[in-house]
Amino acid sequence: MDTISRFPIPALDALPQDIRSRIEAVHDKAGFIPNVFLAWAHRPDEFRAFFAYHDALLDKPGGLSKTEREMIVVATSARNHCHYCVIAHGAILRIRAKQPLLADQVAVNYLNADLTPRQRAMLDFGVKVAERSHEVNDADFAALRGHGMTEDDIWDIGAIAALFALSNRMANLMALRPNDEFYLMGRGTPSQPPA
Amino acid sequence: MDTISRFPIPALDALPQDIRSRIEAVHDKAGFIPNVFLAWAHRPDEFRAFFAYHDALLDKPGGLSKTEREMIVVATSARNHCHYCVIAHGAILRIRAKQPLLADQVAVNYLNADLTPRQRAMLDFGVKVAERSHEVNDADFAALRGHGMTEDDIWDIGAIAALFALSNRMANLMALRPNDEFYLMGRGTPSQPPA
Amino acid sequence: MDTISRFPIPALDALPQDIRSRIEAVHDKAGFIPNVFLAWAHRPDEFRAFFAYHDALLDKPGGLSKTEREMIVVATSARNHCHYCVIAHGAILRIRAKQPLLADQVAVNYLNADLTPRQRAMLDFGVKVAERSHEVNDADFAALRGHGMTEDDIWDIGAIAALFALSNRMANLMALRPNDEFYLMGRGTPSQPPA
Amino acid sequence: MDTISRFPIPALDALPQDIRSRIEAVHDKAGFIPNVFLAWAHRPDEFRAFFAYHDALLDKPGGLSKTEREMIVVATSARNHCHYCVIAHGAILRIRAKQPLLADQVAVNYLNADLTPRQRAMLDFGVKVAERSHEVNDADFAALRGHGMTEDDIWDIGAIAALFALSNRMANLMALRPNDEFYLMGRGTPSQPPA
Amino acid sequence: MDTISRFPIPALDALPQDIRSRIEAVHDKAGFIPNVFLAWAHRPDEFRAFFAYHDALLDKPGGLSKTEREMIVVATSARNHCHYCVIAHGAILRIRAKQPLLADQVAVNYLNADLTPRQRAMLDFGVKVAERSHEVNDADFAALRGHGMTEDDIWDIGAIAALFALSNRMANLMALRPNDEFYLMGRGTPSQPPA
Amino acid sequence: MDTISRFPIPALDALPQDIRSRIEAVHDKAGFIPNVFLAWAHRPDEFRAFFAYHDALLDKPGGLSKTEREMIVVATSARNHCHYCVIAHGAILRIRAKQPLLADQVAVNYLNADLTPRQRAMLDFGVKVAERSHEVNDADFAALRGHGMTEDDIWDIGAIAALFALSNRMANLMALRPNDEFYLMGRGTPSQPPA
Repeated sequence: MDTISRFPIPALDALPQDIRSRIEAVHDKAGFIPNVFLAWAHRPDEFRAFFAYHDALLDKPGGLSKTEREMIVVATSARNHCHYCVIAHGAILRIRAKQPLLADQVAVNYLNADLTPRQRAMLDFGVKVAERSHEVNDADFAALRGHGMTEDDIWDIGAIAALFALSNRMANLMALRPNDEFYLMGRGTPSQPPA
Repeated sequence: MDTISRFPIPALDALPQDIRSRIEAVHDKAGFIPNVFLAWAHRPDEFRAFFAYHDALLDKPGGLSKTEREMIVVATSARNHCHYCVIAHGAILRIRAKQPLLADQVAVNYLNADLTPRQRAMLDFGVKVAERSHEVNDADFAALRGHGMTEDDIWDIGAIAALFALSNRMANLMALRPNDEFYLMGRGTPSQPPA
Repeated sequence: MDTISRFPIPALDALPQDIRSRIEAVHDKAGFIPNVFLAWAHRPDEFRAFFAYHDALLDKPGGLSKTEREMIVVATSARNHCHYCVIAHGAILRIRAKQPLLADQVAVNYLNADLTPRQRAMLDFGVKVAERSHEVNDADFAALRGHGMTEDDIWDIGAIAALFALSNRMANLMALRPNDEFYLMGRGTPSQPPA
Repeated sequence: MDTISRFPIPALDALPQDIRSRIEAVHDKAGFIPNVFLAWAHRPDEFRAFFAYHDALLDKPGGLSKTEREMIVVATSARNHCHYCVIAHGAILRIRAKQPLLADQVAVNYLNADLTPRQRAMLDFGVKVAERSHEVNDADFAALRGHGMTEDDIWDIGAIAALFALSNRMANLMALRPNDEFYLMGRGTPSQPPA
Repeated sequence: MDTISRFPIPALDALPQDIRSRIEAVHDKAGFIPNVFLAWAHRPDEFRAFFAYHDALLDKPGGLSKTEREMIVVATSARNHCHYCVIAHGAILRIRAKQPLLADQVAVNYLNADLTPRQRAMLDFGVKVAERSHEVNDADFAALRGHGMTEDDIWDIGAIAALFALSNRMANLMALRPNDEFYLMGRGTPSQPPA
Repeated sequence: MDTISRFPIPALDALPQDIRSRIEAVHDKAGFIPNVFLAWAHRPDEFRAFFAYHDALLDKPGGLSKTEREMIVVATSARNHCHYCVIAHGAILRIRAKQPLLADQVAVNYLNADLTPRQRAMLDFGVKVAERSHEVNDADFAALRGHGMTEDDIWDIGAIAALFALSNRMANLMALRPNDEFYLMGRGTPSQPPA
């Protein structure tokens, strides 16, 4: 299978300049174009809105570290069985955390992953927002405050889970294929397989 | 309870001009400010991204009528038990459809609502994207094409379900309260209650 | 769709006198005949038993107010996705509570509705009986007693949830259509829709 | 544990005459008083309505045999994890069917029980009404008609499942204990246990 | 239906001697050959491994009584809707416990069965391992220690639930039929059915 | 966290000779001792039975390739959220398939993985046995035969899913930690992470 989406992929040089620039900047930084950029560019206005939302939550300063934000992405995307998001953001999490094992642990079962109690509480809340947000209540807020989270941190956890609720569903709608590069990024030096 | 969100609501005159203008335009049109605008303005960048995404999907031309798009919003928001979205978009659906009964039917159980077969297939797909998007497959696409849906229509259904996956989770995170005005909009003339 | 049930609707003047009298009395009081009476009259003995059960729980004196009893009906019927019961009893709840917003709140997500702690505990229990009665235990009873509920109140909550477990399933079996009148009853004066 | 209900059990001679007569008649026929009669008599009006409903569905003539009706009771009560109903109606099913194995098979997994295709379709529908009645649709009716079921038979299947939706919840609310006699009724002659 | 499995049943005299000896020993003890032995003998190596595992957990000394171990088998097998295991091990539980009612209670709903608090905690844990083992945590271990369970007892509960996770799935794969003898074993003397 | 199990790990030289030999042979082949061997050796008889069962299903000849058998392990272990099994057998699958991407695809969502129709049908069945084996029916067998599967192949699929139902629950009970080596095995040469 060499298609990356169920929907058409636009030619780069047919894209509006702002989108093309963003894609070229990513290419320069990563060495390849993550498929999410090409696939979402099928709808330029939605592309702009999605990445604006993404940047507003993932790239801003705040009480949650960038590593912690990626943990939320990986944990909730795994519950939604989203290929693209688990594999691409798993790579980003490995790189941000400078830790090659954590992403797979969080994806399979964050309840048994190598996390601090604060991170565990953060993922409990993120997964609750992802799966049964209508049950969010004051006790959830109190538990997070008990780990030193501010009101803004709590918004961030919930908003990242909410944004990837959208992103996971779009990627599953498209059957968006992760780039092969992501699978190995941040894993360190490979060992030899058994003979 | 007279709070409209678990998070702070900014003063209108403290908001960036573009956000303030948008809110004033809505006020002029609707006669009141829907709470979603005030609550989301707590985070201006997320406000801009969210409403840009919303407009890109709900206000553009396309194969789905505006009424049909609101049906998707109401059906998926009801599955997510989202007060704000069911009640506010229920009002919009009643007004768009010029039909006072449909929104409540779709919210309680779209399977028994007064829908055409095409609308029913549209909601089957929207709810699937909302609840188990990882199972979306080629047969789903074929079923929608059988009702005359184009590839762009299918994207739109899935994307609206995905956007409200985000929106419902944010509203539930905030415990966002619908304005009282929404409950009665588009219902026609009230009958007398029984003695 | 102008049918009100998947099953035959008897002619009024072909009904046994006691059933006909009950229907006429309801007509006189409400100004219309709620469809549940006509549809259930297809089976006179079941009609008699159902309304006898209904009256024994909904019309008797007791520690739960009539408004509270209707809350249980609406909350559990919404979980069962029952058109007739949510819409008809939503109307009754609005009228009993003299409050136009509560019924829709309880139907979409009672966890975020404008309720007292006692009412919230009452609905937690009613929904538990509706959805997983086999897990009812002594701690549930203790929680309700902590809100001043007596043993008879607890029976009433559970029994109303149980009766509407029956009623919701029958209405869904019939695809029982709510009368148009219910949608607007108890909502007060309608506002103008946006231009 | 020798209590039979979480709620008070009235003294027989304190009961209204009609209820007492019914209980005495059952005693004469069965040789013991099934606990459901004593426990429900705590609320005479509900007792009368429940058994009137029960008789209207279980004791009337119709296209479903009495054995088949008990199959529906056992299959749906097992899904609801109701002690009283599975064990008491399991006994009645063994006796009605003159078959000592069927009730346990239906309770554990009707999908693998010794049933005719017609009975299997009947239980598929009864369990659907018990578990997700809001999804009942025209295809379900067509499937049952394909097994020779009339409209009245379909009502009966659904109505029995609905009545035991009530009954199972009440029995679970009460923690209603089945009489010891039921466990062995209709099982034939016991074999010797292994040494 | 007189087949006992969807897969072939080997002739006894075609079996390897060790398997044949085991089956003959069971026959001598029980008076009949439980179908599980014949059906699993279709795969001799799997037969040997399964029964070795079974004996290692069910027949060894330890803090859990043999009755308690059978309770775990019956409770978890009922959740998995396994005919063979519920009915065969229900018989063994009745015999081990010298109590004719307990097995049916545990199968229908262990939460309302006649159990000690220790047994109830044991089944809470066994069922958790059966249904959502990835959520097992330190608090579960602490709860069991509070009932005097050792680390080895906790392993045993989890391991029995895990072994029957396998066994239930194999029996359901085979549609393995319980021998008629099991249904009545350990039930004591039958009463007369009602006239 | 440097513990590999919630339960004690025996010293290698305290183990029975047969178990020690097996562990040494694995060590010689893989270059390290997979933690599952050390953790299960806490119970020598269960160790012997488990690995005998494992070898009987994973190492024998048959219609399913060794790669296909590992696909079943990974797909079902992912549904059970088992760290050890997904990560260790993911490595084995990469090596067996000589394909570095497949294991992660199968773990996140086999429905969108790079599979042949036969492999997809195989995993549909394996996951059904893992999650709702009581619904296995003749139509499932027919679907697999349509892909050229024999009766023995079908047993193998189901039996592997059943064995890892056990294995996943044991690993989750132990909180069994995968060896760090597994994460990178079979992934080929790592690319450079983005700057």
